[in-house]
Amino acid sequence: MTAIDPAALTADLVRCPSVTPADAGALDILATLLTDAGFHIAWADRGGIRNLFARWGEKGHATTFGFNGHTDVVPIGDEGAWTMPPFGAEVKDGIMYGRGTTDMKSGVAAFVAAAVDFVRNTPPDGAIIIAITGDEEGDAIDGTTALLEHMEHTGEKMDVCLVGEPTCPNTMGEMIKIGRRGSLTAFFTVTGKQGHSAYPHRANNPLPAVARLMDQLASYELDQGTEHFDASTLAVVTIDTGNPATNVIPAECSATVNIRFNDDHSGASLTDWLQREADAVAAAFRVQIDMRVKISGESFITPPGALSNLVSAAVQAETNIVPQLSTTGGTSDARFVKAHCPVVEFGLVGQSMHQVDEHVQVAHIHQLKSIYGRILRDYFA
Amino acid sequence: MTAIDPAALTADLVRCPSVTPADAGALDILATLLTDAGFHIAWADRGGIRNLFARWGEKGHATTFGFNGHTDVVPIGDEGAWTMPPFGAEVKDGIMYGRGTTDMKSGVAAFVAAAVDFVRNTPPDGAIIIAITGDEEGDAIDGTTALLEHMEHTGEKMDVCLVGEPTCPNTMGEMIKIGRRGSLTAFFTVTGKQGHSAYPHRANNPLPAVARLMDQLASYELDQGTEHFDASTLAVVTIDTGNPATNVIPAECSATVNIRFNDDHSGASLTDWLQREADAVAAAFRVQIDMRVKISGESFITPPGALSNLVSAAVQAETNIVPQLSTTGGTSDARFVKAHCPVVEFGLVGQSMHQVDEHVQVAHIHQLKSIYGRILRDYFA
Repeated sequence: MTAIDPAALTADLVRCPSVTPADAGALDILATLLTDAGFHIAWADRGGIRNLFARWGEKGHATTFGFNGHTDVVPIGDEGAWTMPPFGAEVKDGIMYGRGTTDMKSGVAAFVAAAVDFVRNTPPDGAIIIAITGDEEGDAIDGTTALLEHMEHTGEKMDVCLVGEPTCPNTMGEMIKIGRRGSLTAFFTVTGKQGHSAYPHRANNPLPAVARLMDQLASYELDQGTEHFDASTLAVVTIDTGNPATNVIPAECSATVNIRFNDDHSGASLTDWLQREADAVAAAFRVQIDMRVKISGESFITPPGALSNLVSAAVQAETNIVPQLSTTGGTSDARFVKAHCPVVEFGLVGQSMHQVDEHVQVAHIHQLKSIYGRILRDYFA
Repeated sequence: MTAIDPAALTADLVRCPSVTPADAGALDILATLLTDAGFHIAWADRGGIRNLFARWGEKGHATTFGFNGHTDVVPIGDEGAWTMPPFGAEVKDGIMYGRGTTDMKSGVAAFVAAAVDFVRNTPPDGAIIIAITGDEEGDAIDGTTALLEHMEHTGEKMDVCLVGEPTCPNTMGEMIKIGRRGSLTAFFTVTGKQGHSAYPHRANNPLPAVARLMDQLASYELDQGTEHFDASTLAVVTIDTGNPATNVIPAECSATVNIRFNDDHSGASLTDWLQREADAVAAAFRVQIDMRVKISGESFITPPGALSNLVSAAVQAETNIVPQLSTTGGTSDARFVKAHCPVVEFGLVGQSMHQVDEHVQVAHIHQLKSIYGRILRDYFA
């Protein structure tokens, strides 16, 4: 049979305006293709989100390679700022434009095309699982989590998993992600007592307490980095009072910090630390400090080993570049998969993701399919 | 002739809804009364504000006693929250209710009544100047300043001046103000570089700089008070960013501080200090800090002496209370008068000023007139 063209498949997917939570037909295109290639299909839809599970080969086979990705995209923003149709997938000078061309319909198209070609041409002694969600860019509550729960309930198991998100900062092939930092956001509300600026002793100003707390948190060195991770970072992202009157001492002020943390910490250990810092400042300034914490993800690592070696060798063979094993960047669905099996991420150059005129080099889509195909050959060899 | 009833006069004034900049007939009531008593009247209107100048006796007489006050009032706020008509001057259980009953139509009525009775009954060898503005509660740009400029241009001169603002915190007679602290507001804008919370090293967060600067300013001891003044105070009144995205480091943050300062400082010396502190933090954090300063008034003092002794003795004789000579509180038009002649302030209990159901004890209005009358008798004796 003819090989699947991953660029044409990417274009078909881009033309579905699947802004989270809409699917707009994207997953049906893939389901049809996978069914035709002999994949068993199951839907793990939840909360109005479509989630596609597909398996080729025997259920529960010890040698099961998994791919994970998403077909939903972020909104296009100001359509007038786009110079190309945001859902047109138009190609100009070898570059395809449109929302999702980088993040990550091309990645999905590349691994689906690679897997379909692979099972057709050289059916392996093993299985391939493809799990694609329609909710990665949104709250991600009903996405990969739903797929993993479906797999657990039905006895489906991946041996290893590759997430096809864009991972390369500038050059195709330069970076594999073997883990991610965790992310925690703490929302503080500091309450004192309102009063007149001329009589500060009759009021209890919450602002010096906020300033002290934020200064202390921002100045603190959380760590100096660990074996596979950069140093954890803390960013004060907002401080707000909204007091328009210069002769009034306000009663309340809020502040928010965001922490990206490595494996020296956990959401719980950081919550404890923040609470202690807040309590100490509250006591020193005799104000009330309320703290609410949201943990978006814990840090995780798939230590360098068989899986990263497999992916690294394939990248190197196809690109002549030795990829760096990195744990930088924001969160991805790998944070959910890591509880199921070893997981790494490799994909395109991510520079234009989430931006106006998002685009991808068509040659990179073909190169990515080749890399994924080589990974499958080497894994099942 | 019959003595002027200062409570009836207060009620007449309260019934004029003279919310700044409106006069609503208030000053005409006084002008008529003063003209009838032989005062020379001149209007120092400016910028849509009415300002009444009145003099009894010879222009330029070395023995000229001045009274200063205002007939404008602050807005009534939520009318539904009032239990009595805000411009009704209704009396219940010996208490008169309405906007301006305390601040300061009763004070104006008391000194006008005292002065008219005095010149009618015992015409002094000297002069009395009464300067009443319609712009004290607003920007105060076209108020007492316009009256003082009018006096300078026309060769009118007060030897001493009494401002009839409410000065007593709780008990009638307990406090004379012999000076006021200065007031300065500094508006800071701190600018860094926007970025993603996950990559703080690529951004330049202005918030830690704001936190450090506000912590340092709020922690600094400006002084420990001077002979006649309490310690200067600094209040951080607002810090604002307005960044709703927890994964974004903002480019800019603003903060405002208000300083009430004694005679150890001037607006200029504090501006220099604030600029040095801002520059040091800007250098340490490599951010840009812009500062804008508004000086609402310098500190001033009429040192205890002849004028405060005169007022104090009269208060003590009428109330049996020894008044404290104080420099506490916010600004008043005394800050303008002090450039013209020695000035002190004495008036009612100010507790309900600017509040809903503003009110005054009718007996206190009569007592205040007696005090002002005794001051005139003693001054010209």
